[in-house]
Amino acid sequence: MPSIKSLDDLFLHTLKDVYYAERQILKALPKMARAAQDPALRDSFQLHREQTQQQIERLQQVFEELGKRAQGVTCEAINGLIEECDELLEMAPEPSPVRDAGLVASAQAVEHYEIARYGTLIAWARGSGQKQIVRLLEETLAEEKKTDALLSEMAERSTNQEARGAA
Amino acid sequence: MPSIKSLDDLFLHTLKDVYYAERQILKALPKMARAAQDPALRDSFQLHREQTQQQIERLQQVFEELGKRAQGVTCEAINGLIEECDELLEMAPEPSPVRDAGLVASAQAVEHYEIARYGTLIAWARGSGQKQIVRLLEETLAEEKKTDALLSEMAERSTNQEARGAA
Repeated sequence: MPSIKSLDDLFLHTLKDVYYAERQILKALPKMARAAQDPALRDSFQLHREQTQQQIERLQQVFEELGKRAQGVTCEAINGLIEECDELLEMAPEPSPVRDAGLVASAQAVEHYEIARYGTLIAWARGSGQKQIVRLLEETLAEEKKTDALLSEMAERSTNQEARGAA
Repeated sequence: MPSIKSLDDLFLHTLKDVYYAERQILKALPKMARAAQDPALRDSFQLHREQTQQQIERLQQVFEELGKRAQGVTCEAINGLIEECDELLEMAPEPSPVRDAGLVASAQAVEHYEIARYGTLIAWARGSGQKQIVRLLEETLAEEKKTDALLSEMAERSTNQEARGAA
């Protein structure tokens, strides 16, 4: 395990953590889309997959700005979040509004992990005056917050009512 | 693994997940407090431990409202989040402003997990008209958001500057 002695080390380590996380999310989203019953939810996962691809490219630009090779480090948090989503699909094996409600919840937990991590990276990059890096990360953070808000609407307006109706 | 067929099943499962998570956080916070160099950060972890105790009691009240026994189910997400914090302490073994910055980041990732989960539980409880449960969960959610905002201030104002200075 490498040692962390400076804020630059800490920034790079956290960047690698998020890079790993985004790539795991990219792999998980098609499965989540296939599992969704509501076409609007399926579409939102597909759209988020395209966004995730762009977010990965932005992270690669951040590595480039730092003069470092883009690489991930295992992120146990995202592994745990994705494992919880897999468990949900095992416990609710058939497509249903209830399973959709669980998928929305899983996706929001993932979004919040990303919101926390990008928020931290932005605070650190801002502290060290890395304007281009701040700009790239802020673009992604805004997307993550928007996705979370859309999922909240989905949870409140449609999925919940349907799930309740089917219960 | 129990099967999830209704929104009530999903709510109960997620409640157990959060209950497990809060109890793991309760165990992790004294270690985080001991690891912090900045007295203000140490105090904030100690204060959050007291809050977490109350939040656990509120969850017990929610179980009671539902006529269910309070029990947890393993939450891989929180295990992963706490594991990442432990890794940080291994990579930055000495107390320092840089380690403090990492502790703040870890704590914010944990807060965001809780914010996502409580947000979801509230949306579901609201959908089913469980007013008392909504009230209990909203009280906790407000505390989690406040803690996250305090940690953000800490990250922006003091810890980062010091970490930068020490780098």
